[in-house]
Amino acid sequence: MNLLNETHDPALRSWVTSANAPGCDFPVQNLPFGRFRTAPAEPWRIGVAIGDEVLDLRAAGLLDHAAMAQVLTLPQAERSALRLALSRGLRAGSRLQAPWSTCLHAQTRVELGLPCDVGDYTDFYVGIHHATAVGKLFRPDNPLLPNYKWVPIGYHGRSSTLIPSGTPFVRPRSQVKAVDAEVPTLQPSARLDFELELGIVVGPGNAAGEPVAMAQAEDHVFGLTLFNDWSARDVQAWEYQPLGPFLSKNFASTVSPWIVTMEALAPYRQAFTRPEGDPQPLPYLHSEDNAQAGAFGIELEVWLQTAAMRASGHAGECISRSNFAEAAYWTVAQLVAHHTVNGCTLRPGDLFGSGTLSGPRPEQAGSLLELTQGGKAPIRMANGETRTFLEDGDEVTLKGVCRRPGAASIGFGSCSGKVLPALSS
Amino acid sequence: MNLLNETHDPALRSWVTSANAPGCDFPVQNLPFGRFRTAPAEPWRIGVAIGDEVLDLRAAGLLDHAAMAQVLTLPQAERSALRLALSRGLRAGSRLQAPWSTCLHAQTRVELGLPCDVGDYTDFYVGIHHATAVGKLFRPDNPLLPNYKWVPIGYHGRSSTLIPSGTPFVRPRSQVKAVDAEVPTLQPSARLDFELELGIVVGPGNAAGEPVAMAQAEDHVFGLTLFNDWSARDVQAWEYQPLGPFLSKNFASTVSPWIVTMEALAPYRQAFTRPEGDPQPLPYLHSEDNAQAGAFGIELEVWLQTAAMRASGHAGECISRSNFAEAAYWTVAQLVAHHTVNGCTLRPGDLFGSGTLSGPRPEQAGSLLELTQGGKAPIRMANGETRTFLEDGDEVTLKGVCRRPGAASIGFGSCSGKVLPALSS
Repeated sequence: MNLLNETHDPALRSWVTSANAPGCDFPVQNLPFGRFRTAPAEPWRIGVAIGDEVLDLRAAGLLDHAAMAQVLTLPQAERSALRLALSRGLRAGSRLQAPWSTCLHAQTRVELGLPCDVGDYTDFYVGIHHATAVGKLFRPDNPLLPNYKWVPIGYHGRSSTLIPSGTPFVRPRSQVKAVDAEVPTLQPSARLDFELELGIVVGPGNAAGEPVAMAQAEDHVFGLTLFNDWSARDVQAWEYQPLGPFLSKNFASTVSPWIVTMEALAPYRQAFTRPEGDPQPLPYLHSEDNAQAGAFGIELEVWLQTAAMRASGHAGECISRSNFAEAAYWTVAQLVAHHTVNGCTLRPGDLFGSGTLSGPRPEQAGSLLELTQGGKAPIRMANGETRTFLEDGDEVTLKGVCRRPGAASIGFGSCSGKVLPALSS
Repeated sequence: MNLLNETHDPALRSWVTSANAPGCDFPVQNLPFGRFRTAPAEPWRIGVAIGDEVLDLRAAGLLDHAAMAQVLTLPQAERSALRLALSRGLRAGSRLQAPWSTCLHAQTRVELGLPCDVGDYTDFYVGIHHATAVGKLFRPDNPLLPNYKWVPIGYHGRSSTLIPSGTPFVRPRSQVKAVDAEVPTLQPSARLDFELELGIVVGPGNAAGEPVAMAQAEDHVFGLTLFNDWSARDVQAWEYQPLGPFLSKNFASTVSPWIVTMEALAPYRQAFTRPEGDPQPLPYLHSEDNAQAGAFGIELEVWLQTAAMRASGHAGECISRSNFAEAAYWTVAQLVAHHTVNGCTLRPGDLFGSGTLSGPRPEQAGSLLELTQGGKAPIRMANGETRTFLEDGDEVTLKGVCRRPGAASIGFGSCSGKVLPALSS
């Protein structure tokens, strides 16, 4: 299985010089897709990030229409051809430099929206260290439920409140009940948290009633984003039995603007193995390709900028680091195969959240719930501030980057959201 | 509070003579909205059911555009004006009889689709007798969880697998694990069930971050449908901890074709009171109007037609009857107020399932899980057949009707779905 081609060549450089800077998330080996506009009333345009710029695909003559659904549903061969055309056109020395130069917009001067319209959003729970750590808070002796190593646990979320990176949101109010209180009260969440996740964007859908087998599963995935599934822990604790989280999650979930395609991620694939002694997945969740290269090495970071940091010009502090490949007990392909095994229909643009991607060590946790041991052990930052949960004015930014010896480094951009004070009434 | 007007007058008759037949679901006092087409490739048209016919609203000159979203978002005054125009134009003696006669289609000769495009689908759990009966199967001494009488419990479902009445669906396969089994297996659900619910269709949405107060809650509801939330109980039991139902629900949910509007339902309003000794709802879930008239008297029925019945020309047997007002612990208005109290955005066409509407007596249960005491006590039908859960070829049909002395009777039509055998592989 060799999934690499000329677009992955680490020696490639772009005539967009910002793309060649060390540490740039968007070198010519990446070419992630997103949507942008230059004025609020404009329809969204399809763009590809290159360095600090975004290339307008229609203006560049690469797309007839302007709907992301058109890109998401391209057959694999056409997707690859589009990537190759982009790679060749953006390379240093391309004869398209002159015409395409007029199709570039500085990313800082456009509005970046949700990368696609999302029909259904599903949140999975693939982070086994997260599931274990959270389970320990409730069941110290038996943190993982018996189904965890068999079922890629997931549940449906709300698509109406998916928001693009950079959009602030109001601290939610809802019912909470303190353990020692007689009755619940309506109040702003006092245990507001982030969740470090990846988003998985569905490309071509499946027909109603037709499961997608492991061998075809990744054909239905367009690519990955960063994803922050903001969570109100106090609300969740009171509401979630017996049918799962609801108002504790559906007030806002932030999606990063760029979909890094499965093809761009090919160089960072890894073998996917289970710890010794764990059950093997049922046959519908197993394939040789998946075992050999179903995981992706994506380094993840969580940055927190408090209001005090912002006021003093401090860009924020990294409060956690983990890696998708270390954090996840299930692969992208397994999520697709499981989601459709009952015949459930996936549609282009549907989004899966991976679940919180905590690493194996406590400081690699992907949520404050874990980092603070359920709010009992505040984290302390370099400027002396502490946090158990998020305070008003806090801005959380997720970052992701893929690195491997012999390959270019590519990044996901950032996924940011700021907490605004709760409504006063 | 007098919500009745001339469109509710029980003496009204229509020039569409089938609308005047006793027991007709769609007399001129009803006027529910839906979507139809006369050929598979056609775009959906907006129609109103009258007797056995459907009136094409655009052909009748009542709508400029053909999108249901346009109807759903009409301000209250315009909705009422449209209803009045329909009522007057369809009444016996109307001068519109001649021109509108050409805008009618026999319901049996058109395809009736989902009544609107659904963005997000939320399933609630308002049936307290259902929650109690199901809880008893797991926790005989403490069937209702502590949050039930405080929180209108809900969770998100999947909109991609909402299907219109009359669409059969394949019995889902998924992981199940028998209590005495060592490991789970992939197999067709052996405990496939229906759930008798009502669907609540959102009209105008709310702005992001802005809760809807009880006093305005019903302004955001366009009307009600019948709704069957098919459930695979064996799948649910294995997968649902800790995040709720997923593959056990998202293979199919059936929606009836007609949205009965809140205005049409006004004559069947009832006082909404809680049993003596129950806690009063928190202030954000209370209003005087809701207490006085927040409930709706809707008589509900579940009909089962087995393959054997079909072969012998038997239309099916009624296996359960209940009533929305008796079954529900929370009102439509309370669901809207709760869903948005955290700022969650509702969009036009979003759908809420009420949750299973079991009546207080065991034979009034809205699912086989309850009717058969968890599969232990099969129900026996008049032809001698028995059922614990649904078998291939079974067709379940939900019906609903509103009756009150001094008012016309109006109905919801029917909500049907048939179980096809599981895929063989």
